[in-house]
Amino acid sequence: MERVYLDYAAATPIDKRVASVMQKWTKSAWANASSLHKEGEAAKDILEQARIDIARILHCKKSEVIFTSGGTESANLTILGIVEAIKKKWKKRKRKYCPHVVTSTIEHPAVLEPIKNLLKKGEIEASFVFPNKEGIINPQSITRELKENTILVCIMHSNNEIGTIQPIRKIKKAIGPRPFLLVDASQSVCFEDVSTERLGADILILDGVKMYGPRGAGILVVKSGTEIAPVLFGGGQENGLRSGTENVISATGLAKALKICEQTREKESARLKKLRDYAIKKILATFPNASLNGSLENRLPNNINICFGSKSQGVTLGPGSSKVTPWDSEFAIIKLDTLGFAVSAASACHNLSLENSSYVIEALGKPECASSSLRFTLGRATKKSDLDKLIKVL
Amino acid sequence: MERVYLDYAAATPIDKRVASVMQKWTKSAWANASSLHKEGEAAKDILEQARIDIARILHCKKSEVIFTSGGTESANLTILGIVEAIKKKWKKRKRKYCPHVVTSTIEHPAVLEPIKNLLKKGEIEASFVFPNKEGIINPQSITRELKENTILVCIMHSNNEIGTIQPIRKIKKAIGPRPFLLVDASQSVCFEDVSTERLGADILILDGVKMYGPRGAGILVVKSGTEIAPVLFGGGQENGLRSGTENVISATGLAKALKICEQTREKESARLKKLRDYAIKKILATFPNASLNGSLENRLPNNINICFGSKSQGVTLGPGSSKVTPWDSEFAIIKLDTLGFAVSAASACHNLSLENSSYVIEALGKPECASSSLRFTLGRATKKSDLDKLIKVL
Repeated sequence: MERVYLDYAAATPIDKRVASVMQKWTKSAWANASSLHKEGEAAKDILEQARIDIARILHCKKSEVIFTSGGTESANLTILGIVEAIKKKWKKRKRKYCPHVVTSTIEHPAVLEPIKNLLKKGEIEASFVFPNKEGIINPQSITRELKENTILVCIMHSNNEIGTIQPIRKIKKAIGPRPFLLVDASQSVCFEDVSTERLGADILILDGVKMYGPRGAGILVVKSGTEIAPVLFGGGQENGLRSGTENVISATGLAKALKICEQTREKESARLKKLRDYAIKKILATFPNASLNGSLENRLPNNINICFGSKSQGVTLGPGSSKVTPWDSEFAIIKLDTLGFAVSAASACHNLSLENSSYVIEALGKPECASSSLRFTLGRATKKSDLDKLIKVL
Repeated sequence: MERVYLDYAAATPIDKRVASVMQKWTKSAWANASSLHKEGEAAKDILEQARIDIARILHCKKSEVIFTSGGTESANLTILGIVEAIKKKWKKRKRKYCPHVVTSTIEHPAVLEPIKNLLKKGEIEASFVFPNKEGIINPQSITRELKENTILVCIMHSNNEIGTIQPIRKIKKAIGPRPFLLVDASQSVCFEDVSTERLGADILILDGVKMYGPRGAGILVVKSGTEIAPVLFGGGQENGLRSGTENVISATGLAKALKICEQTREKESARLKKLRDYAIKKILATFPNASLNGSLENRLPNNINICFGSKSQGVTLGPGSSKVTPWDSEFAIIKLDTLGFAVSAASACHNLSLENSSYVIEALGKPECASSSLRFTLGRATKKSDLDKLIKVL
């Protein structure tokens, strides 16, 4: 039986063209990019070419592109680094403020957890803004929280669970040049122009694993002027912001993956949007108790997240059927898995916390849906027949 | 002209067998190892198999093996993590100690820099132990520094510049079960058994780039019982110690690279030792002012580090020659490079600091050699004829 993979938000396969670029450089660009000899210089040239290619697509300076080991590291480095830099500055000026960070309740754990940790240690104050029922953050709900000591606002471009797209430009406009705005656009980059210029982000986070690129590799853009201190110390690579021998091969893979996303963005978005809307309509028609989690209008073209009704309420199986069964997302994932479908509930990262419910869906004011929803995320290989099969099996 | 690469300490090429294992899993193990479906479980199984393979070779528990993005991250995470954990514990017990760390003056920047940074911030006390003239750390010079508040000793297994091998077992014996002992064995792993059992290390650091393995990938062993707090926060992967989507493909590459190192260790060490000693003898005979930096006896089989005489003193070119020219390592590297040889002076990481001298060689009490030494590091492809060509050209 051919498997149907519908979990592209958790991980995308590595594009053949990306793998082939990386394979090529594995043989010839393995030297240390910080070495002074020809082998080192060649590696450095290839690294810098990747940086230039990325900067061109993201409309930023080459020096603003930092290679990291992925989204989690990027978020941690920048959140800790900005807090550290501003604390140092304030200490010098003998200002006794505690830095204040604003974020949303539906951010990814890679953003929420370092903020919560700093909060617990008493190193920052933090405000957690709720989205509306549609999963959208109102810019005014952020500006309401701004204080004299607010240094950083962290809002993801699109949510990894429910796919809602945030009004980042409006948020930046509303908060002004300071505080800094950190935007995780990992889930969006293959569907939208997420250039820092367009978004107005001061920090932009992208991850290879979400863009058909290398694993353990991420692009971090830190706009010049952003006050940030290094968190990892060592050889001082990546402008001193990210020490560690440069991963040249992955950098070439990231550049290629980003380029492919840029080239296929429009066409693929239109294609998937059609498939998405077709499937949503069909599923909602089949399950009278079901509802879509998050806005349909401001939504990634590849994201379907459906609440199938609360556990206690149960699910009415199809129109006209009187059979009602309890619905549990973990059970459903495993059942669908045995039937050949790879789907998910919350994010893969969140599974680890062993809580069998979604804090994102709870934040929408739908607690009854937090453990009875399923996420289907589509990708380059998804065909209409895959969704037909899914709907039939559901 | 065929190039002669003699900078294996900066970076090793990626072994074809490693590349081929990774290529294989690139196609089939790209899913998120934290996902609940078959694709995720398959990735998880492959990740855990890599972990088991590594644990077997390093004689530690599977749960003690952590995958990171490389040596620099590993060193930073453990140094910061141990300081953080112990501070927390002491705070609870209302003890007002400041944690104390002991290290050597010849450690890699990935260890020295985070320690110096914590020191600067007033978060720790630190002692920096000098090696003897041979580049060896005397265990007693460490025990002399131990205090009631010493929580961590960081001594590398072998030095990246001069290749001297430290008496790690004796150091662990001398310091006892506490403080914790952090050992960076990146340069040694292809030549020596660096199992935690044999060394007595509480934390062991290995890096793919130094073992013919993947770039941007490292093995970190944290023995159970080591008090350590997470530094990167997010999805809680790697026992909560290293959040971020698991890099399954690199993990398989690391396991394969380590296995090859284990299998070829003895034979390759013997082969390179012969080449090393041959070249050292020839070079010292050719340059009367030259001297070997660091012990010959306790030395990596692939490391040749020669002081060619001070800048002011100059170098007498060959026996019988009366011509004396000034010698500068950076000039020499570039000159040798144009002649077809990739060599280095200090470490590649250190080049970045723009100081054209080696703090390691200075620490040996040879300041006059700090900017007039060259490092030749041999590897799997090095042949006797390569060294003959080098000596001829020198």
